Amino acid sequence: MRRTSKSLPRERSARFGYLGRQTVNMTQLKNDTFLRALARQPVDYTPVWMMRQAGRYLPEYRATRSQAGDFLSLCKNTELACEVTLQPLRRYAMDAAILFSDILTIPDAMGLGLHFVEGEGPKFHNPIRTAADVERIQVIETQQDLPYVLDAVRAIRRELNGSVPLIGFSGSPWTLATYMIEGASTREFKRSKEWVYNSPELLHQLLDKLALSVIDYLNAQIAAGAQVVQIFDTWGGILSDSAYQEFSLAYMRKIIAGLVREAEGRQVPVILFTKGGGQWLESIADTGCDAAGLDWSTSMADARQRVGGRIALQGNMDPALLRAPAAAIEAEVARILAGFGRGEGHVFNLGHGITPDIDPDRVRVFIDAVHELSRPYHAG
Amino acid sequence: MRRTSKSLPRERSARFGYLGRQTVNMTQLKNDTFLRALARQPVDYTPVWMMRQAGRYLPEYRATRSQAGDFLSLCKNTELACEVTLQPLRRYAMDAAILFSDILTIPDAMGLGLHFVEGEGPKFHNPIRTAADVERIQVIETQQDLPYVLDAVRAIRRELNGSVPLIGFSGSPWTLATYMIEGASTREFKRSKEWVYNSPELLHQLLDKLALSVIDYLNAQIAAGAQVVQIFDTWGGILSDSAYQEFSLAYMRKIIAGLVREAEGRQVPVILFTKGGGQWLESIADTGCDAAGLDWSTSMADARQRVGGRIALQGNMDPALLRAPAAAIEAEVARILAGFGRGEGHVFNLGHGITPDIDPDRVRVFIDAVHELSRPYHAG
Repeated sequence: MRRTSKSLPRERSARFGYLGRQTVNMTQLKNDTFLRALARQPVDYTPVWMMRQAGRYLPEYRATRSQAGDFLSLCKNTELACEVTLQPLRRYAMDAAILFSDILTIPDAMGLGLHFVEGEGPKFHNPIRTAADVERIQVIETQQDLPYVLDAVRAIRRELNGSVPLIGFSGSPWTLATYMIEGASTREFKRSKEWVYNSPELLHQLLDKLALSVIDYLNAQIAAGAQVVQIFDTWGGILSDSAYQEFSLAYMRKIIAGLVREAEGRQVPVILFTKGGGQWLESIADTGCDAAGLDWSTSMADARQRVGGRIALQGNMDPALLRAPAAAIEAEVARILAGFGRGEGHVFNLGHGITPDIDPDRVRVFIDAVHELSRPYHAG
Repeated sequence: MRRTSKSLPRERSARFGYLGRQTVNMTQLKNDTFLRALARQPVDYTPVWMMRQAGRYLPEYRATRSQAGDFLSLCKNTELACEVTLQPLRRYAMDAAILFSDILTIPDAMGLGLHFVEGEGPKFHNPIRTAADVERIQVIETQQDLPYVLDAVRAIRRELNGSVPLIGFSGSPWTLATYMIEGASTREFKRSKEWVYNSPELLHQLLDKLALSVIDYLNAQIAAGAQVVQIFDTWGGILSDSAYQEFSLAYMRKIIAGLVREAEGRQVPVILFTKGGGQWLESIADTGCDAAGLDWSTSMADARQRVGGRIALQGNMDPALLRAPAAAIEAEVARILAGFGRGEGHVFNLGHGITPDIDPDRVRVFIDAVHELSRPYHAG
């Protein structure tokens, strides 16, 4: 059902900017290994990309960022956001690019006043505290409210020139809500959980507006040229199994149902990544997503046995391995590949974003190990 | 196999202080509901206790602690440690007491210099950094090195006077090692993971010494009067599935194999709690433990289906619920009870320790709800 092709109705095409975007040669893809793996089709090797692959571990990223000023200015500068997106691809043979942006662009566009404090992470000038705050929130219209994101998508697609697919992304409604409610990074999620347990109706109102916003946001990214989309549910794992279903997964299911799933004559796969969500894989597979992202706590063999017949799996090396000797990285890549085993439906990745302290040479060891060691698992 | 009765050989009894302790009437237990539930035997209601039930949410605890000075002085003062252990039982109808102590007593006894910095948690003056540091570590002998813990166990047993069973406890070797290696609380476990991936042999040496120490420590607690023991693997969940097996679970299995499992003519059940370990329940059940502690991310129904035929389950309400209205607490208790369903083998608890900001009246709502709402699940 979720793979049924249907052409886009005209209004939708217009709304999401299909007609407005510049025509580029989008149908040719030199390397479609990533898309094939997501569709569980045969590949020659296991494709790989890294969450936060455009990031501070790269000296050229740090240089571009200091040119831009702060992190948010970098996100909003089309040329520089495009530049940092492409930087890792110039160094390594990655099989996908991911839009350089931040999950908090949506709350920023809603007027919460996103800013970054060095060493403390993201903060909001106007966090959500009351029913009136929720009432005031407007569902975003990406074309008007976040044009810079779409400009970046278009620019990156142009520059990629069909080399590898481009991933667009969004935070999950629950994950965005935690930041909006807490107003800053937190370890305890005290306020967010108070909303879950003390004010569930109000939280549902907020999540509903966020889900509608994410649908618009991801569809606009797809219309602008994103060929895959990933939903980052970074904080779904802090919930109880029951609260996860009600406050996080239900809204991701709603988003997936609202997405345009085809563009440029291809399926647009959706990857759902709930960090700490390994116990809930069966219900994640039921959302209609094409792939589930796994963190390193999940056994790849177990995961494949549980849901590998229905969806692709993405992951899941602990990024801490990238501080280990090359032989240890290669051994861990080999272990994860063996866990998935022969056959299709595996995209290699880290179990979470790469950290800033990693030596770029170790990333090469990782990427090359995935490519080389995976070939026997795909040989006819 | 793990429930086979055997009498203690004499040397062992002497070693663990059986002969030396004061004789109290230890065989009578007015409330053995907790022990029966752990043995998956019939009970009238689901027993309940709370991790960190002797803690800062109680004004009488804060008063006793300020009398003792700092946290560690409180642990080392037999009379006051006994007093705070009993405080929650005077207020609430809990079905077990837990020794008031800290998991870091073992590294402290190893000479690492434990101290607590207000608002920052535990720190060590002499963290483990090198092979020489590991070499220097001596396996502890509880009678000599940690007599104050055994004094507290004996005093508490005397004061409890058979009202409810007393739980002894230890941190898991892996969890203790993370603190010893990091030297302070951490979010990223960067150094600990460097040991996992860069120096696994050295880490195994350290874990081996810790496992031997924990065996001695828990056996000494059992000999002094602990009727149940719990191993807190607070940080097992940060590991990959493979590293968890090798660096955490293997040592807990070794500990369980080394424990005296009977005292005073009763089985001494072992509860193993790996926070974030819900995905690994099957292998946890294989360690020979009698029960697994669950955090709130695990569905009680799923857990029972997976391992409920082999071990008891303990948990698993999110402590954040204790900030919610009484009706929400009762609804969540009802949901978790229904998840486990009819029959035996459930000990109710929180999914993690109670936090200091909780209103003591909400704890009463929680405890009473468990007792009242669980009766229908045990009715003949």
